[in-house]
Amino acid sequence: MDEADSEVQARVRASFERQGLMAHLGARLTHIGPGLVHIELPSRPEVTQQHGYFHAGATSSIADSAGGYAAFTLFPADSSVLTVEFKINLLAPAEGEFLDAVGAVLKAGRTLTVCRLEVFAVAGGQRTLVAAGQQTLIRVDARPER
Amino acid sequence: MDEADSEVQARVRASFERQGLMAHLGARLTHIGPGLVHIELPSRPEVTQQHGYFHAGATSSIADSAGGYAAFTLFPADSSVLTVEFKINLLAPAEGEFLDAVGAVLKAGRTLTVCRLEVFAVAGGQRTLVAAGQQTLIRVDARPER
Amino acid sequence: MDEADSEVQARVRASFERQGLMAHLGARLTHIGPGLVHIELPSRPEVTQQHGYFHAGATSSIADSAGGYAAFTLFPADSSVLTVEFKINLLAPAEGEFLDAVGAVLKAGRTLTVCRLEVFAVAGGQRTLVAAGQQTLIRVDARPER
Amino acid sequence: MDEADSEVQARVRASFERQGLMAHLGARLTHIGPGLVHIELPSRPEVTQQHGYFHAGATSSIADSAGGYAAFTLFPADSSVLTVEFKINLLAPAEGEFLDAVGAVLKAGRTLTVCRLEVFAVAGGQRTLVAAGQQTLIRVDARPER
Repeated sequence: MDEADSEVQARVRASFERQGLMAHLGARLTHIGPGLVHIELPSRPEVTQQHGYFHAGATSSIADSAGGYAAFTLFPADSSVLTVEFKINLLAPAEGEFLDAVGAVLKAGRTLTVCRLEVFAVAGGQRTLVAAGQQTLIRVDARPER
Repeated sequence: MDEADSEVQARVRASFERQGLMAHLGARLTHIGPGLVHIELPSRPEVTQQHGYFHAGATSSIADSAGGYAAFTLFPADSSVLTVEFKINLLAPAEGEFLDAVGAVLKAGRTLTVCRLEVFAVAGGQRTLVAAGQQTLIRVDARPER
Repeated sequence: MDEADSEVQARVRASFERQGLMAHLGARLTHIGPGLVHIELPSRPEVTQQHGYFHAGATSSIADSAGGYAAFTLFPADSSVLTVEFKINLLAPAEGEFLDAVGAVLKAGRTLTVCRLEVFAVAGGQRTLVAAGQQTLIRVDARPER
Repeated sequence: MDEADSEVQARVRASFERQGLMAHLGARLTHIGPGLVHIELPSRPEVTQQHGYFHAGATSSIADSAGGYAAFTLFPADSSVLTVEFKINLLAPAEGEFLDAVGAVLKAGRTLTVCRLEVFAVAGGQRTLVAAGQQTLIRVDARPER
């Protein structure tokens, strides 16, 4: 997989580190390519639903961030990204050692960008697609992050 | 607002307590009515995105649980609920003292139930609609929770 | 129900008449209020799916147009509207004398507007909610319609 | 592209021919593979929106049918398919000689099947992705078509 250039990687990592939720869940950025970002979430009781599987909210949270950063890799340095909306199907019970959420830009536009979202559960080296979705993002210019 | 009967309330609370993610985020069940559930999430750095607002993933997590439990209040005692899919629009930056997610059953079916999801940010007693969505749930019979 | 002012009504009707699909389906604009539009579709074999019910595509088409025009009523005179995306649940078999699609603005923004979509089947004076959805629209300025 | 076996093809074609909407729009089934169906829609004034592009409703209608039949190819002979919900992003103005809607099964289940939907506009031999979506379908057993 292609890596994004180092300036973009630094920008994405800096923003990711400001997302309190990602740290709190235990999520990690594992790949930053142009228009393609992976985020992993290890299994632990703090991210489960009532049957012990990963909670749809945890699955969605990393998928949302993966898509947002995939879009962000294609934006100018002084711009910012906000999620307009997303839709996600939970395809199978999400269990395993960790989840791997993949955000991939499907259509990049000046104002709006659309990403495809996929989340795989990884157990014993085997990947199972457990969620798939689609997300719309908006580019906001010159929005100082705080 | 109507309260669900006490057996249903106990069933919902017991299941909610098994959702590791809800406890980890700091979310609280604040209303359990027939087909209508509220979940609140206080503001804290652990649930933010990069600009300091509530993360779309946190907003979605409590909306998903609120909808799931709203459906669950209408199910027989030995059944269980799984999210099939949901779609959510983030309508405004989510900031304030806490979020109030409301899941309301729009159509209850034997197999599938559809909920409307709304999330309000509450600041200084004022409520702002910050997210709205729609969710499809499936009833699973006799699934032992673990 | 409030009526939109006459200039807005004329603008909506003129645009609706340019939608070849609406005429071809037999759809009619039946209410134009500020942020609220109704479109009706009479039952006929040309709008059915394989079981004789209204086709999800017909249901969605009038819901999409109702939402688009609901947003359009709130826009300046020289602007135009495009659908960014929508999501719709088909809640029940759609059968009856006609469908009544209701598009209602949930959040109006400078760039993006979000609508709630509902479609009722009407049979013997009784209304049944057969579809519900949510739609994101974008305002495009000074786009000459052709 | 693989073709579905002849019994499945005959079953899909017979059901498609009962969809009054598809004939009325002028849509044609152009490929029936296992879990993969294409439907084409030629450009004509009867399927346009107010700017002369294909109407989002027309685009969605053929996408919905393509996904429904993609699922249907994997079902037993005496079962039927209904759309539970779909979500679609309109990525670019849809113009050209015809649209090619592709429904592809992403996850086949006993009760629910999820499809990925893509619609391409074809002009001068060039294909442009103009819409992308995701759809949930339910299998209904022994439902006599009428």
